[in-house]
Amino acid sequence: MAIVNGNYAKLQDSYLFTDIAKRVAAFTAAHPEKKIIKMGIGDVTLPLAPCVVDAMKKAVEELGHKETFRGYGPEQGYEFLHEAIQKYYARHGVKLDTKDIFISDGAKSDCGNITDLFEDTNVVLVPNPVYPVYADTNVMRGRKILYMNGTPQNHFLPMPDDSVKADIIYLCSPNNPTGAVYTREQLEKWVAYARKNDAIILYDAAYEAFITDPSIPRSIFAIPGARECAIEFCSFSKTAGFTGTRCGYTVVPQELVRRTPDGKELHLNTMWLRRQTTKFNGVNYFVQRGAEAAMSVLGEKQCGDMLDYYRENARIMMRTFDKKGYTYFGGVHSPYVWMQCPKGMKSWDYFDYLLNKLAIVGTPGSGFGSMGEGYLRLTAFGSREGTIEAMKRIEKDSL
Amino acid sequence: MAIVNGNYAKLQDSYLFTDIAKRVAAFTAAHPEKKIIKMGIGDVTLPLAPCVVDAMKKAVEELGHKETFRGYGPEQGYEFLHEAIQKYYARHGVKLDTKDIFISDGAKSDCGNITDLFEDTNVVLVPNPVYPVYADTNVMRGRKILYMNGTPQNHFLPMPDDSVKADIIYLCSPNNPTGAVYTREQLEKWVAYARKNDAIILYDAAYEAFITDPSIPRSIFAIPGARECAIEFCSFSKTAGFTGTRCGYTVVPQELVRRTPDGKELHLNTMWLRRQTTKFNGVNYFVQRGAEAAMSVLGEKQCGDMLDYYRENARIMMRTFDKKGYTYFGGVHSPYVWMQCPKGMKSWDYFDYLLNKLAIVGTPGSGFGSMGEGYLRLTAFGSREGTIEAMKRIEKDSL
Repeated sequence: MAIVNGNYAKLQDSYLFTDIAKRVAAFTAAHPEKKIIKMGIGDVTLPLAPCVVDAMKKAVEELGHKETFRGYGPEQGYEFLHEAIQKYYARHGVKLDTKDIFISDGAKSDCGNITDLFEDTNVVLVPNPVYPVYADTNVMRGRKILYMNGTPQNHFLPMPDDSVKADIIYLCSPNNPTGAVYTREQLEKWVAYARKNDAIILYDAAYEAFITDPSIPRSIFAIPGARECAIEFCSFSKTAGFTGTRCGYTVVPQELVRRTPDGKELHLNTMWLRRQTTKFNGVNYFVQRGAEAAMSVLGEKQCGDMLDYYRENARIMMRTFDKKGYTYFGGVHSPYVWMQCPKGMKSWDYFDYLLNKLAIVGTPGSGFGSMGEGYLRLTAFGSREGTIEAMKRIEKDSL
Repeated sequence: MAIVNGNYAKLQDSYLFTDIAKRVAAFTAAHPEKKIIKMGIGDVTLPLAPCVVDAMKKAVEELGHKETFRGYGPEQGYEFLHEAIQKYYARHGVKLDTKDIFISDGAKSDCGNITDLFEDTNVVLVPNPVYPVYADTNVMRGRKILYMNGTPQNHFLPMPDDSVKADIIYLCSPNNPTGAVYTREQLEKWVAYARKNDAIILYDAAYEAFITDPSIPRSIFAIPGARECAIEFCSFSKTAGFTGTRCGYTVVPQELVRRTPDGKELHLNTMWLRRQTTKFNGVNYFVQRGAEAAMSVLGEKQCGDMLDYYRENARIMMRTFDKKGYTYFGGVHSPYVWMQCPKGMKSWDYFDYLLNKLAIVGTPGSGFGSMGEGYLRLTAFGSREGTIEAMKRIEKDSL
């Protein structure tokens, strides 16, 4: 008799964005004439960069001819893309070995699949609020999860607490949903904590490209000692608008070693390679060519123009909130503005208010954890016109 | 202290195809002048069909313009592709609901990731010989694995044994590596066994498109009752040459229900949707457009021409083996010819003989399980010229 994974019964019934989609659909059905402005899901709206489109069309064409056809590629990705990523990191001051880099179909897949590498007895430390995938994927394994609170007092940047013993620590900086960014000094403290406790930091750097202050690290590997205690997830989704194109990468340093329950030392890099060669067949060839183009100097320039467009949207939002006297976090080094709901409203109440009164869709902060209650995440990924129009509606509104 | 998954230490050190690649690299380094004919890895060599290339280039172009840009798609795939697959199945006599279908980056990913849905106490039944991924992914979860032997006597098609109690059963038909195909009557017996034992059949149909006899089912769902006991994995890799393009799909019928350890009934379709929405972000948009084209009537015709090309290669191989008096299986309804090594040689010995004496690369049968010892898998995916040349070398050889 097949027995299904009982941990799935412990998951909350439905996923945040599914709930939002349902409410938006209901509103649209009731008010087909209203122009909804979507500032909810963290999805980009600008088209792919010209150099990326060109590289991918050329590569698709290659697959249409016998002489240039390619079948299975290396599960960990093509060397040309490893080298492009290595150079990109080098331009931002971080040295990687190409063997540290694994290409995947996105940071979400890797964040979920990395849980395969650990025993289910590990205690997991997750920020609250945060991207729900970190907790959900560990609930699926039945692991004990501890939360560390982000608060206005710590600027939504929880720091290590020596009284808490955690084995696996999720950090996301620039943070989703709060837009908060750890400084170098703060990351040094996290690395010190992880090393002291033989813990592993799972560092989600999906939004690193939004960082403009060169003193703020774009990678955990800018911190000395991180190669012995951290794995980094990154993505082309936000950097190059690849949300529908699907490409990410994970950096697993070859120095990272931990023990099995019976004391055998294993290299995480080797384990991840084994996991990927066994359960994955690599990313498609032309997407990797597109990603290579995005990581080039020209690509970084073209993608940088997109990032600047989104950054200006964030500034427009922040100016409105300043005028209204709203409290908010993020918006700098991040496409997210994390606003406190006016008048002490709860997250879903303010969500419904904005949707039903102003036809604006945000993401309720409570969907990212209990500490997000009373907050709303708005994204700068919309169009300029939409962002301006939404801010006009908020400015005029009495709340 | 982070503790890594001890089951990884129980995996064999290296993967079959990595071993082969190393021996081939060593031979090439020693004999750069020899023209190697690769008939080892099951990778296609013909270019993508014209209608597929056109659809993908058009879709890449769409992503390059603001008006037609698409970001995140549905994690389970676009409805247009669900409908194309539904029609494809209908043309081959099987009715599916579009909600049964989940698009992924390949059957290998899904075959591995499906293990997430089950408790680790399930007993897994795996054919021997078979595609190594089924066993390896369950070793990673620490599950008990039973093997059922494929032998020349059962034509490498093991049948249910009522004395064996298994919870999860892997079947692969047309089989990799043996090329053997279950008949309708045989599949009916498997479905009856699974229903009687509340087991689940994980049915790998990646090679279904090679079946030419309409009396042989191309899907487990051609068998009444299978919707209550089976999940099917399929792929565009072999059907449409997508090994480097990456797209597959998994059919999880909405009727499939099993219990958690504490007796709660869960729908596997809902569980898989939850798994995919949490740990996956869907397949890229233009690949799905390419897959849609491959599933169209025109696409099935263009891809069918490729399949015919490979089938003719298989016939050329079989003619040579008939002349030589070799024993073999498969080659019909399958791109694989599963040959008994001449003179009772062991698999790796014959592999080395063919590589070093004739510069032909096969896959040692023992790499697919102990019952594959003494066999070699040769694929029909090579070029016509390569296949003919390899068969000439074998025909002339004294062995």
